[in-house]
Amino acid sequence: MPQPLQIALLGSKFMGRTHSNAYLNVAKFFKLPLEPEMHTICARDAEDLAVFGPRWGWAGFSTDWKSVVDNPDVGLVDVATPNHVHKEQAIAALEAGKHVACEKPLAGTLDEARAMKDAAAARPDQHTFVWFNYRRCPAIAYARQLVKEGRLGRLFHVRAAYLQDWGGPDTPLLWRFQGDQAGSGAHGDLNAHSIDMARFVTGEEFTDVIGAVNETFIEEREIVDSAGGEISGRGAGGGGDKRMGKVTVDDAVLFLARLSGGAVASFEATRLSTGDKNRNRIEIHGEKGAIRFDFERMNELEWYDATLPGAEQGWSTINVTRGGDGHPYAAAWWPDAHIIGYEHGFVNQAADMIKVLGGEEPEAPIPDFADAWETQRVLEAALRCADKRAPVSIADVT
Amino acid sequence: MPQPLQIALLGSKFMGRTHSNAYLNVAKFFKLPLEPEMHTICARDAEDLAVFGPRWGWAGFSTDWKSVVDNPDVGLVDVATPNHVHKEQAIAALEAGKHVACEKPLAGTLDEARAMKDAAAARPDQHTFVWFNYRRCPAIAYARQLVKEGRLGRLFHVRAAYLQDWGGPDTPLLWRFQGDQAGSGAHGDLNAHSIDMARFVTGEEFTDVIGAVNETFIEEREIVDSAGGEISGRGAGGGGDKRMGKVTVDDAVLFLARLSGGAVASFEATRLSTGDKNRNRIEIHGEKGAIRFDFERMNELEWYDATLPGAEQGWSTINVTRGGDGHPYAAAWWPDAHIIGYEHGFVNQAADMIKVLGGEEPEAPIPDFADAWETQRVLEAALRCADKRAPVSIADVT
Amino acid sequence: MPQPLQIALLGSKFMGRTHSNAYLNVAKFFKLPLEPEMHTICARDAEDLAVFGPRWGWAGFSTDWKSVVDNPDVGLVDVATPNHVHKEQAIAALEAGKHVACEKPLAGTLDEARAMKDAAAARPDQHTFVWFNYRRCPAIAYARQLVKEGRLGRLFHVRAAYLQDWGGPDTPLLWRFQGDQAGSGAHGDLNAHSIDMARFVTGEEFTDVIGAVNETFIEEREIVDSAGGEISGRGAGGGGDKRMGKVTVDDAVLFLARLSGGAVASFEATRLSTGDKNRNRIEIHGEKGAIRFDFERMNELEWYDATLPGAEQGWSTINVTRGGDGHPYAAAWWPDAHIIGYEHGFVNQAADMIKVLGGEEPEAPIPDFADAWETQRVLEAALRCADKRAPVSIADVT
Amino acid sequence: MPQPLQIALLGSKFMGRTHSNAYLNVAKFFKLPLEPEMHTICARDAEDLAVFGPRWGWAGFSTDWKSVVDNPDVGLVDVATPNHVHKEQAIAALEAGKHVACEKPLAGTLDEARAMKDAAAARPDQHTFVWFNYRRCPAIAYARQLVKEGRLGRLFHVRAAYLQDWGGPDTPLLWRFQGDQAGSGAHGDLNAHSIDMARFVTGEEFTDVIGAVNETFIEEREIVDSAGGEISGRGAGGGGDKRMGKVTVDDAVLFLARLSGGAVASFEATRLSTGDKNRNRIEIHGEKGAIRFDFERMNELEWYDATLPGAEQGWSTINVTRGGDGHPYAAAWWPDAHIIGYEHGFVNQAADMIKVLGGEEPEAPIPDFADAWETQRVLEAALRCADKRAPVSIADVT
Repeated sequence: MPQPLQIALLGSKFMGRTHSNAYLNVAKFFKLPLEPEMHTICARDAEDLAVFGPRWGWAGFSTDWKSVVDNPDVGLVDVATPNHVHKEQAIAALEAGKHVACEKPLAGTLDEARAMKDAAAARPDQHTFVWFNYRRCPAIAYARQLVKEGRLGRLFHVRAAYLQDWGGPDTPLLWRFQGDQAGSGAHGDLNAHSIDMARFVTGEEFTDVIGAVNETFIEEREIVDSAGGEISGRGAGGGGDKRMGKVTVDDAVLFLARLSGGAVASFEATRLSTGDKNRNRIEIHGEKGAIRFDFERMNELEWYDATLPGAEQGWSTINVTRGGDGHPYAAAWWPDAHIIGYEHGFVNQAADMIKVLGGEEPEAPIPDFADAWETQRVLEAALRCADKRAPVSIADVT
Repeated sequence: MPQPLQIALLGSKFMGRTHSNAYLNVAKFFKLPLEPEMHTICARDAEDLAVFGPRWGWAGFSTDWKSVVDNPDVGLVDVATPNHVHKEQAIAALEAGKHVACEKPLAGTLDEARAMKDAAAARPDQHTFVWFNYRRCPAIAYARQLVKEGRLGRLFHVRAAYLQDWGGPDTPLLWRFQGDQAGSGAHGDLNAHSIDMARFVTGEEFTDVIGAVNETFIEEREIVDSAGGEISGRGAGGGGDKRMGKVTVDDAVLFLARLSGGAVASFEATRLSTGDKNRNRIEIHGEKGAIRFDFERMNELEWYDATLPGAEQGWSTINVTRGGDGHPYAAAWWPDAHIIGYEHGFVNQAADMIKVLGGEEPEAPIPDFADAWETQRVLEAALRCADKRAPVSIADVT
Repeated sequence: MPQPLQIALLGSKFMGRTHSNAYLNVAKFFKLPLEPEMHTICARDAEDLAVFGPRWGWAGFSTDWKSVVDNPDVGLVDVATPNHVHKEQAIAALEAGKHVACEKPLAGTLDEARAMKDAAAARPDQHTFVWFNYRRCPAIAYARQLVKEGRLGRLFHVRAAYLQDWGGPDTPLLWRFQGDQAGSGAHGDLNAHSIDMARFVTGEEFTDVIGAVNETFIEEREIVDSAGGEISGRGAGGGGDKRMGKVTVDDAVLFLARLSGGAVASFEATRLSTGDKNRNRIEIHGEKGAIRFDFERMNELEWYDATLPGAEQGWSTINVTRGGDGHPYAAAWWPDAHIIGYEHGFVNQAADMIKVLGGEEPEAPIPDFADAWETQRVLEAALRCADKRAPVSIADVT
Repeated sequence: MPQPLQIALLGSKFMGRTHSNAYLNVAKFFKLPLEPEMHTICARDAEDLAVFGPRWGWAGFSTDWKSVVDNPDVGLVDVATPNHVHKEQAIAALEAGKHVACEKPLAGTLDEARAMKDAAAARPDQHTFVWFNYRRCPAIAYARQLVKEGRLGRLFHVRAAYLQDWGGPDTPLLWRFQGDQAGSGAHGDLNAHSIDMARFVTGEEFTDVIGAVNETFIEEREIVDSAGGEISGRGAGGGGDKRMGKVTVDDAVLFLARLSGGAVASFEATRLSTGDKNRNRIEIHGEKGAIRFDFERMNELEWYDATLPGAEQGWSTINVTRGGDGHPYAAAWWPDAHIIGYEHGFVNQAADMIKVLGGEEPEAPIPDFADAWETQRVLEAALRCADKRAPVSIADVT
C-alpha cells in the first residue's frame, strides 16, 4: 500500500478545476508510488469554496494560504493562482519545506521568476514542477522521443503559433486584459507554452531573439461588472453609454529566434486569429524528418519520414493512442483510437509529478523552476526585442 | 441538497471501468437533480473487486448479483456484463423494482431482447436506459438537432461504417470471437452502434434490409490461456505447435437498407479494416444539407449547408465544443476547442440518466429498452437477410 | 522522327473536349513512338464543328461518321459518343481495320458490349482501348503497384463510392435522365468507374453480387428545351406551369459484392449526395496495408503501412507527383507537388495508347474491350440483383 | 474573327515551358478578344530550340533576343529568362514599342526593378505584366473577392509561408544557389510570391519590416557538371573527392511586417522545410472572417465566416471549381470538382493579359511593373532589415 501524499491547492478558478480533476482521477488510471490525497483547497472566497471543495473531493478548505502552506501535514503545494502571486506563494511553500508545483508561466515578471528559481535552487531536496501541460499530450511527448532518437536529424526550422480568437473588439475588459493582474496578454499566456514545447521537443535552448512585434489591436474595451470573470468569448452586447477602459497587455506577440543547434524559429501568439479557438500548433523540420502538431487535433501527430523510399514519403497522421506500442501515457487510458481530451494532459502531469516524488521516472521530463526560468528568459527577450527594436541575446537576459 | 441515487454496477471489465468513471465524475461537471452515490460494484472475481472497488470509489462490492439487485437501498442497477447475461440480470432488476441501465446491444439474441423490452413495458414507472454512448458525442447530438430543425430537408442517403482492425490473423481466440459468449462479432458490437446512430440522427426507422454479407475471414484462431481477456490488437507470436480453435462469430457484416422516409442506407462493421482503429463513421445527405462524422475526430462535425450561396458552399468542420453557443454537453466541460475524449460520452450519458430519474429533460433522448429493441430488430434482419440471401422486411422481425 | 498516327474522333461534347485536349497536349509532355495527328473530328452539328474543329486543332471535320471510319488515312478511331451508339460505331471501325478507343462504359447494354468484345476478339491485330480515365490518375496507378508488389497482402475490404450531387429535384430532365439515350443513370456513369478501379487496383475479378439497390428518388423532372445539354447542377427556377416528364434511369445504385481473392466489396453511385461534387472515393484494406483515394484530392494517395513499427503507423498522405521517385506519369509533368488536374488523366491515357500502338509498354495497363466487358458484366449483375432481389453470380452473366 | 496577337517568348527552361503551354491552350478554353499566335521562341541554345520550338507550336525560333524584340510583327514580348537579364530585355522591348510580360520577381536587384518600373511609366500606352501566377489560382482570386466585399472586416493577421524542401545538403550547387545568376535564393523565388499574394488578397500595402532573418544553412555544396540544370531534389550521391563550392544565396528568409490597415504579418520562405514540396500557404484573419490556402491543395479555399450563428461556425473547405456559381476562372475549365492543376494558373494569366490587350477587363487585376515594384520594395526591405538588424520603413526603400 503506497504512502499518502497530502496535496494543498491554491486557486479555484479555471486552473483550480483542471488540477482538482487531475488529482481526483490520477490514481484511477495510473499505478503510482504514492497515494495522492486531496487535503486542502485554498482560495479567497469562502462561499465558493464551500461548494467547490466537496464537489471535487477536497477534505478541507481555507481562505488563508499562509497557514495552508505551513500545515505540516501537507507534502505538495500546488500554486494555481494568478501570475502576480506565484512568487510569494511558491517561495513561502518552499521555505515551509514543501514540494511545489506552479502554474505557467513561472511568474509575471523576470525578477519574480528569478527569485523563484533561486529559492528552488537553494533547496535541492525539494522538488519543483511547472504545469506546462502540453508536454503531457502524448503526441508532443512522442515527438520529443523521435527527435531524441535522431529521427529528425539536424533541425532547420521550428514554426510555432498559438492562435485563439476570443479577444475581438466586443470582448469586455476582463482581468486578462489588465497588466497588473495578468502580467502580459497572449505572450505570457500562449507563447509561454510554445516556447516550452519548442525547448522540450527539440532538446535545444534559445540563443537569440532576432525580431519581435508586440501588438495591442484593441486599445480600449468596455468595463463590465463581471469583467473579473473567465474567458467567455462573448461580447457585452451594447448599450449606448458604455464605459471604456484601457487595455494594458498585448493582443498578439510574434517573434523570430534562433536555437542552439542553429535552427531558425518563429513564434506567434494571438487572441485575434478569427476561426482558431485553441490552435496550439507547432511544426519542426529536420534533415531526416519533420513533425506537425495542432492541439485542436491533440490525439494526432503528423510525422514525415524523409528516410523512406521517395515514392512512399508522405505526411503520416499517427493517432497517438496506442499504449501497447509504447505511445507515451496511452497505456493508462483507453484502447487504441478511443481518444483523450484536454484535461488528460493535467492528469498525465499529476501522474508524473507523483512518480517523481515517489522516486520513479516520469514518462517525460517535467519542467522544474530552473527549466521554466529558461522559458521565462525567452519571453523576456522577446519583449525587450520588440521594445528596443533590435535583436536580443538570451545570454544577456539574466 | 439533492436526494441521493444509489447505484449498483454489474461488471468490472472494460465497460465496468467506463461506467465507474462516469459515475465518479458526473457530479463534478453537471448540475444534477439527484446526487449519484456509488453503492456497490458486482462481478465474479472477488480478488479483482477488492482492488477495483476502492480504486473507483465504490462503497461496497459483491460477487452475488442477485442479492445486489434485490438490495432495497439501490435505486439504479447498471448492467455492464457480457451480452448473454443481460436478459436475466436486467429482468431481475426490473422485477426488484429498480430502474435499469444496460450496455448495448440490448441482448445477444432477439428472443432475449424481446423479453427485456416486454419486461420494461410491464413496469412503466421504472426507467430503462441503454448505453449507446455515441449519441452523447456532442457532434452526434448536434447532428440530430440539425436534422430535427429541417436543415437537411428530405434525406436521401445514410452511409455508416464502423471500422476497426484488431482482428487480424495473429489475434488469438479471445472471448469476442466465441459466439456463445459474445453473441455476435463486429455486427452486435459495432453495427449496433451505427444502427442506433442512424435512427437517432435521422429520427427515422428502418423498413427493410435489402442485401447483406456476413463474413468470417479468419476461420480459426490460436487458443491461448489469456484469450478471455480484453482486445489487445497484439498477435500471439508464434511457436510451431499452436492449438487452433474455431471462430464462431462474424469478422464483418455489411448490409443495405431503407429508412422510413425513403432514404437508402449502407452499413459496414468490421474488425479487419487495416489502419482504422476505431473509425465509427457516418455520413447523411439530405436535400438541403449533409453531415459527416468520424469518431477518431469526435470533437468535429462536418456540415454542408446547401442553402448558402453556391460559391460559399463547402464542407465546414465545426469544433463542437462551444458551450456558450449551445453545442450539446459542451457547457459542462472546458472552454471552446479544449477538446474532450472517449469517456466523456459515458459521463454525458450518466448525467442524462440522472436528469431523467430526477424528473428533468436530458440534453438528448436516451434509448430505453423499447427503443433499443428497434435497433435489435434491424440487427436481426441483417443476419436473416445474409442467411436467406433475400431481402427482409423489418415488419417481419417481431 | 516518329511515324504519324492519324486520329479521328467521334463526338464533340464534354468527352469530345477532353479527348481533343489530350491529343493536342500529349506530345508536348510525353516522348512517344508515334506522332499523333488530329485528322478529323466528327459530330452531328456542322455549325458547331466549324468552331470546335479549328479551335482544338483538328485538320478536318465531318458529320458523316461512316465515311470517317472508312477513311484509309485514319489509324485510330476514338468513339466519344453517347453509350447507345458505341456498338455500331466501334464495330464499324474495327471492320474498317482501325484501332479503336471507346469511352466508358463499353456499351449501354450487355448485348451491345458482348458484340463489341467479340468483334475485337475476332481482330487480334487491332488494338482496342476503353477510356477508364481514373486508372491514369497517378495515385490510382501507384496504388495498383503497391498491391501488385504485395504491400497490402491478402485483401479483405474494398469500399467504393462515387458521389455527386447535381441530381437534386430542381435539375431538369436532361438526356442523362432518359434511359433510351443514357442507358443507365449513376450506375453506368459512375459505378462503371468504380468497378474498373477496383479491378485495376486489386488485380482481382468479381465473383458475385450479393445485394443491390436501384433507386430513383426523383421520379419526375421538368421538361426544358435545353434539356439535351450538359450537366449544369442548376435548377430551372420555376414558373407555375411546368411540364414534367418521367425519369427512366436510376439516381443511385448501391451493391455488395465479392472478389476472387475473397474480399468483400461495397459500391455506391449517386447523384444526390449533397456536398459531394465529384467524390470518386475508394478504400482498400489488406492484411499488411491499406490505401484510400478521393478524386477531389486526386494528387494524393493515402497509404497505411501496417508493417511499420506500431508506434509509427499512420495514414500517410503521399503527394503522388514525384517523377524522380517513380510515381506513375509524374515525370512527364511538373516538379514535385506542382499538382495536376482532371484532364491530365486523359492526356496520360492518350500517351499510353500511343505507346501501345507504337509497340511500347504503357505506364499502366489500359483496358481493352475484353477487359471492359468484365466491368460490364458486373454492372449487369448489380442490376439483375436489384431486380431479382437475390444474389447473382458473375459466372451467370455471359 | 479576333485580331491576332503575335507573341515572342524569351526563355525555354521551366518557365519557358509553362508559358508556352499557356499560349498553346489559352484560346481553347477562354473566349478572347485577340487571337494569340506563337510567333517566336528565343533562347541561347539553337539545338534545344529546334526541338522545343516545334514541339510547343512556335512558328519560329531565334538565339538573338535583340532582333526578336525589334521584330515589328511582334506585339507582346514575354521575358522568362533569369532574373539578372530581366531589366535589359524588358526595357529593350518597351523601347521597341512592345507590350511586355515578365517573370517574377520583377528583377534581381532594386536598381534594376526601379529602372524597369520607370521605363514602363514613361510609356503609358504599352501594357506591362508580371507573372505572379498564384493570383490566378481560383482560390486566391476568390479570397481577394471576399476581402474586397468586406467579408473579413478589419484585418488583424497575415501569416504566409512558402515551404519547399529540395535544398538539403545533398543537393549540388545548382545555378539557383549562385547569387550572380539567381539574385537571391528562397527570398526572391518564394517570398516574392507570398508578398504579392498578401498585397493582392488584402488590397493593402506594406508599411514596415520589423524583424528579419536571412539564413544559409548549407554553406557549401558540391560542384557538378549538370549544376546549371533545373531543380531535381536529388542528391549527387557521393564519391570521396567532391569539389565543393560556396553558396551565395539564402536558404531561408523569415520576416515580420506591418500592413497599411494595421495588420501584423509574418513571412517565411525556405528550401529546407522537410516534407513540404511546394507548400505555398497563406492565412488571413479579419474581424468578421478568415481564409486559409495551401497550394498543395490549390483547388480548395478554407473560409471561416464569423458572422454565422456561433454553433454553425467552422472552417469550410470550398472546392473553388464552380463556374456556374461565379468562382473565378472556373467557368473556362471543367465541371464542378473536376479539379485543375499548377499550369492552369499560367493559362489563366495568359487569358487575362490577352483580355487587357484587347480592351477587356481581366477576371482579376494583373500586376504591372509599377505594382511588382511595390513587391520588390518589400523584398528589399526584408533584406535590409536582416542585414542592419533593425526595422526598415518601406517608405525609405525608393
